[in-house]
Amino acid sequence: MSIRSQRLESLRWTVGVDVPAVAGMGVDEICTPALVVDLTAFEANVRAMKGFAAAHGMALRAHAKTHKSADIALIQMVEGGARGVCCQKVSEAEALVAGGVRDVLVSNQVVDARRVDRLAALAQRARVAVCVDDADAIGPLSAAAARHRVMLEVLVEIDVGNGRCGVAPGAPAVELARRVANAPALRFVGLQAYQGAAQHIYGHDARRAAIAASVALVRETVAAITETGMRCPVVSGGGTGTWPFEAESGVYTELQCGSYIFMDADYRRVREADGRGLPAFAHSLFVLTSVMSRARPGHAVCDAGLKVLSVDSGLPTVFDRDDVTYAVASDEHGTLVDAEDRLRLNDRLWLVPGHCDPTCNLHDWYVAVRDGVVEALWPVTARGKAW
Amino acid sequence: MSIRSQRLESLRWTVGVDVPAVAGMGVDEICTPALVVDLTAFEANVRAMKGFAAAHGMALRAHAKTHKSADIALIQMVEGGARGVCCQKVSEAEALVAGGVRDVLVSNQVVDARRVDRLAALAQRARVAVCVDDADAIGPLSAAAARHRVMLEVLVEIDVGNGRCGVAPGAPAVELARRVANAPALRFVGLQAYQGAAQHIYGHDARRAAIAASVALVRETVAAITETGMRCPVVSGGGTGTWPFEAESGVYTELQCGSYIFMDADYRRVREADGRGLPAFAHSLFVLTSVMSRARPGHAVCDAGLKVLSVDSGLPTVFDRDDVTYAVASDEHGTLVDAEDRLRLNDRLWLVPGHCDPTCNLHDWYVAVRDGVVEALWPVTARGKAW
Repeated sequence: MSIRSQRLESLRWTVGVDVPAVAGMGVDEICTPALVVDLTAFEANVRAMKGFAAAHGMALRAHAKTHKSADIALIQMVEGGARGVCCQKVSEAEALVAGGVRDVLVSNQVVDARRVDRLAALAQRARVAVCVDDADAIGPLSAAAARHRVMLEVLVEIDVGNGRCGVAPGAPAVELARRVANAPALRFVGLQAYQGAAQHIYGHDARRAAIAASVALVRETVAAITETGMRCPVVSGGGTGTWPFEAESGVYTELQCGSYIFMDADYRRVREADGRGLPAFAHSLFVLTSVMSRARPGHAVCDAGLKVLSVDSGLPTVFDRDDVTYAVASDEHGTLVDAEDRLRLNDRLWLVPGHCDPTCNLHDWYVAVRDGVVEALWPVTARGKAW
Repeated sequence: MSIRSQRLESLRWTVGVDVPAVAGMGVDEICTPALVVDLTAFEANVRAMKGFAAAHGMALRAHAKTHKSADIALIQMVEGGARGVCCQKVSEAEALVAGGVRDVLVSNQVVDARRVDRLAALAQRARVAVCVDDADAIGPLSAAAARHRVMLEVLVEIDVGNGRCGVAPGAPAVELARRVANAPALRFVGLQAYQGAAQHIYGHDARRAAIAASVALVRETVAAITETGMRCPVVSGGGTGTWPFEAESGVYTELQCGSYIFMDADYRRVREADGRGLPAFAHSLFVLTSVMSRARPGHAVCDAGLKVLSVDSGLPTVFDRDDVTYAVASDEHGTLVDAEDRLRLNDRLWLVPGHCDPTCNLHDWYVAVRDGVVEALWPVTARGKAW
């Protein structure tokens, strides 16, 4: 057992922390299955998005729902051009603020009384904004903010074709903005206008058309709001699949991309079906797995299944190998087709998850590697923070 | 805020534990989304399986991969007729043993050197058994057991139609059993013969036929092993979808059912398609969720998405309501069809997960309720223990 493996075991016995790796280890020593970030690719993605946003004059509010990591959020803010982050849950925002992040938009509705109270309390420690799509949400938010002696910034969420949350664009949004602006402890700052359903449309023109439709709705709504004399300084939206279209729109001011730091198998398919236009990001996120059985000819079984990989957007792909395919995910196993029977017990494979966000939420640690050596461990700070 | 809600907040500030509920709360006060166990239904399921196993003269080794909870494992052993539990990972076994469970089968291959060592170390503190499907796994397991001065019990895993791990039945299994028996610190105790793929076959006759095929392979293999003079006292397998067939087989000795304690939407469909024969278990596991948006006519959005519900086996169903359907799962949202617009903000729904095992693995706590009141909180002891 290497010195670093001993150090890992000693961490378990002395402080009760069972980590998959320690700094300085070679990647061959990482305990599998593990969530691994290739720092070279990750940093290139962070830099690329910083450059793209700056080139388009767009603010970047990186979506921390992707990674749920205070370490990564701070890298995005300090080195990646992000003015702050967004996330989807109050408990997630609390974990990020506790980790040092000082500017968080909860890009979601917060209507439960206890959650509303905790959100307002959090605004004592960081710049906090939240979305509203229902007039009934306004009174409790304003009352909680007053109780905690803070002003909460509010974006009115409009449905620009996503079909999930969001008030209808135009007059209903204007009316809601007016009510927010009139609430004593709330400040209306603009629109949340994220078209999530468009992110994964295959085909450049179809994706562009979906966002063109969103942009028209946003433009109409911003005009209607400003006609009433209110200001609407922020229009926030855009994801890794569509942000160039929002950036060119002239009405969006802020991008909410999240997956760009990691990429995943589904975004890879979106990009490959695009043909043109979608900037390239590199795969930086992997589930490192080991072969545990090869009893069946033409097949092997690895130690990464549904409990370390989310398959909602398809199975993982095997990175950098054409001879092996991940064919079936069961709870704790991945069944691989290995037609030429090349795999041996304990061989390692680098899997690209089908969908990065819910995959990261399954893990406690990111193992950050560079050039085959572990450089850092980052906790998944807000893992399981679904409240 | 109720006294119990204050107690919950005070736990967060004083010991840093953010729990979704405390004992004594009404179910309406539980923070959502939360994983909730209805104790009345759960205990009825535990008792029913105890009775079924006893009536068939079968040992019960409950599968703890379903729940990953030492509390539930101990209930199954102390009150539910289980001789022990099985699980799929060494780190899972460690968490269960640390929680007081003293008889664990890792019903899986363990071939990584560090895992093998930790498995043998664990056998100093509990009865530990493991599976083998490859001759190359035997030497390291025996050496580790000798190093830790323990005997490890070993089941040879055979592929009875599942198509995942497992050596071929018949001669290859006999040869592997012989090698295990000859290893200095291993004890061959029998066969692991789980037909996972058959559990979810719709239709009584098709499922019965799949297990009949497995039983024939097991019978042939047991006969071949005993012909060599070796004993084969344990044949372990069977799950919540098929166990009556293994129990009637005359060759299986031990059942490995896991999901019976909870049920899920997919097992419900298996049961409804069965028509006869499959004993009834009640839904005892729910994801409790709240409505957070109703901006779109005919629809509502709840706070339970992919990060609290695994959708690999289909979407959740809404318990006890015919007027609302869970239609789309996104990362943090569930989009509901509410054709009559009955739902209001903060209304609560009880969702039955599509697949219980990976859903439980997303949560940190079970909220155990009886007659509408929280009775206990159980940690998901081995959550994320995928190593």
